[in-house]
Amino acid sequence: MRIDGLQYANWSEKIFRQMHAGGVNAVHATIAYHETFRETVLNFEQWNRWFEQYPDLIVKAQWASDIDRARESGRTAIFFGFQNPSPMEDDIGLVEILHSLGARFMQLTYNNQSLLATGCYEDYDAGLTRMGREVIAEMNRVGLVVDMSHSGDRSTIEAAEHSTRPIAITHANPHDWHPALRNKRDKVISAVTENGGMLGFSLYPHHLKNSTACTMESFCEMVARSAERYGAEHLGIGSDLCQDQPDSVVEWMRMGRWTKTTDYGEGSPSNAGFPPMPSWFRDNRDFGNIEEGLRATGLNADEVAGIMGGNWYRFFRENFGPEDGA
Amino acid sequence: MRIDGLQYANWSEKIFRQMHAGGVNAVHATIAYHETFRETVLNFEQWNRWFEQYPDLIVKAQWASDIDRARESGRTAIFFGFQNPSPMEDDIGLVEILHSLGARFMQLTYNNQSLLATGCYEDYDAGLTRMGREVIAEMNRVGLVVDMSHSGDRSTIEAAEHSTRPIAITHANPHDWHPALRNKRDKVISAVTENGGMLGFSLYPHHLKNSTACTMESFCEMVARSAERYGAEHLGIGSDLCQDQPDSVVEWMRMGRWTKTTDYGEGSPSNAGFPPMPSWFRDNRDFGNIEEGLRATGLNADEVAGIMGGNWYRFFRENFGPEDGA
Repeated sequence: MRIDGLQYANWSEKIFRQMHAGGVNAVHATIAYHETFRETVLNFEQWNRWFEQYPDLIVKAQWASDIDRARESGRTAIFFGFQNPSPMEDDIGLVEILHSLGARFMQLTYNNQSLLATGCYEDYDAGLTRMGREVIAEMNRVGLVVDMSHSGDRSTIEAAEHSTRPIAITHANPHDWHPALRNKRDKVISAVTENGGMLGFSLYPHHLKNSTACTMESFCEMVARSAERYGAEHLGIGSDLCQDQPDSVVEWMRMGRWTKTTDYGEGSPSNAGFPPMPSWFRDNRDFGNIEEGLRATGLNADEVAGIMGGNWYRFFRENFGPEDGA
Repeated sequence: MRIDGLQYANWSEKIFRQMHAGGVNAVHATIAYHETFRETVLNFEQWNRWFEQYPDLIVKAQWASDIDRARESGRTAIFFGFQNPSPMEDDIGLVEILHSLGARFMQLTYNNQSLLATGCYEDYDAGLTRMGREVIAEMNRVGLVVDMSHSGDRSTIEAAEHSTRPIAITHANPHDWHPALRNKRDKVISAVTENGGMLGFSLYPHHLKNSTACTMESFCEMVARSAERYGAEHLGIGSDLCQDQPDSVVEWMRMGRWTKTTDYGEGSPSNAGFPPMPSWFRDNRDFGNIEEGLRATGLNADEVAGIMGGNWYRFFRENFGPEDGA
C-alpha cells in the first residue's frame, strides 16, 4: 500500500494517471492555504467536478475504508486537508462543518501566527492560544487531525500534549539531518511520536540535504535513522509534491493577503520559485524508487510497508472518526 | 469641547438626545468586535440609516473638522472604530478600504490572540506578529489609529515603538489605581504617551476602584495623578459606555465564535452581565460631573478642557489623515 501524507499539485488527468502508474492508493491533498470558508467550499466543489470527470482514476475519501475501496478498483483515494486554519476563520463551529464536508487534516498555522498557534517563521512562539486549546478539543471530538508541519516548536509540543488524540507533522524532515527552518528538532518529533503521532517525510527540495541534488541514499538513510530513533510505525511519506504549479502559486502560499511586500519564505530573491524535484522523485510515478531505497538501508519488509503506506492507513483508521467511536 | 474616546451603546434616538443634553461634540463609536468585513459593512449601513433618520442630532464624521461642523449645528460627530481586527480578516488590503468607509481606530486585538498581536487574556504575550508589523505600517500610511486597549503589555509597548505615528489606549485606567487585567501598567502607559499617544480614562465599572461604588473624587484624583505622571495633554475620556445593551451582547463580546464554553471575561459566574454604572456617570448627560470633579482636583482650566475633549480633538486632527499629509 502506498499513501502520500501531503501533496499540493496543479491537479490534472495527467497527474491522476501518474498516481495510478505509481501505485498510489491514497493522497492527502491540500485544498486550502489562505482561503476563507467560502473560498474553501469552492475548492471542495472543484474536487467534486474532478471526481465526476475522472471516476475511473480517483475517488472522494473520508475514511480509511475508502482506501480499500480505491485499491479494489485500482483508483486513488483523495483525502482533504488545509495548511492553515483560514477555512474555519474565527468560528469554532466551522470545525465540525468542515469535517462534514470531508476535511481530515488542518494545520493550526501556516508560517505565521494564526488565531490558534504560532507559525515557524515568527520571531517568538508563545504556544497555543486560548482559542487554539478550544479548537484542538473540538478537532479531537469530531476527528479532524491536528497537523503542525508549519508551526513553531513550542506550539507543536504543546499541541501534542494538549491533544487527546495523536497529531501529525504531515510533511517535514528532521532538523539534525538538514537544518532548514521548516524541518523539526528532535524534541518536537519526539513529542509528536511519543503521543502516538506521525511524521511524514518531505521530498520538497528546501527540506532536503543539498536540496534538489539530495541523493536517494541520503534521504533513505535519514528515514532509517528516524525509524531507530522514533519507531518505524510513526513514520510515513508526505512528499509535499507541488507538481505543475506556476511560481505565482508559491508566491500566494507565502504571502497570502498578509503583506504588501515580498516574502520569499524558504526561497530567496535569487531562488524565488518552486525548486526542481530530485531526479529520483520527479512525481507520483517514483514512489517505487523510495521503496527500493528504504529496503536497501536494511529496514525490514514490514517497516518499509508501514512507512510507504501502512502506518498512514492505521493512523487514518484511528483518527478520522468521532472521538467516542474511535 | 467634549469628546468621548469610546462608546458601544445600544444606539437610539434617546441616546443621541442624551449626547446633545450632555454637550458631547464627538464620540468614537465601536462598530465591530468579532464581525467579519461583510458584517462590519452592515454596521456601517446601519449607521448610514441613523444619520439619515436623525440629521438634527448626529453627523457622520471622518476628520477633526467634522467636529467643528457638528458643534456649529449643535450635533454630535460620530467616528467609527473596531475593538478587534476582525473586520480586516486576513487581508492587509482591507485596511485602506475600511479607512475609506470611515474607520478611524482599530484595536490590534480584543482579549485574545489575533493575527496581529496578543490580547490581555492570553497566558503569554509574544508581541507583534509578522503580519502585525506590516499592518501597523499600513495603518500609519492611511491614518487608521492603532488602539491597544485590550492588548497585552508586550504587544502594546512594541506597537507604540513600531508605529511611526502616535497610538492610543482609548479606554482603560492605570493598573496601579485599580489592578484589573484590562487596566494598564505604568510602563505601558509611558510607552504610549512618550510616543505622542493618548490614554482615554474608562468609566466601565470593572475598570474602576470599587467598581460601581467608585467615587467621583477617587476617579478624578486618579486622572490628576496621571496628568502629573504622563502629561495632561496625553489624556482624555474613553467612557466605554455600553448603555442599554442586553447581557447577551456582553456574552457575544467575550465569546464571539472562538469557544463553545462560557467565558466570563472581566465578570464572573455570579456577576456575568453588564455592571451598573456609577451614580455620577449614568450616561452622556453626566460629562459635566466629570468636568467639575476634575476642576476640584486642582487641574487648571486648560488641562481640564484638554482632558474633556481638546486633546482628542488635536489627536484626531493629526492622526486621521494620510501619513504624508499629516
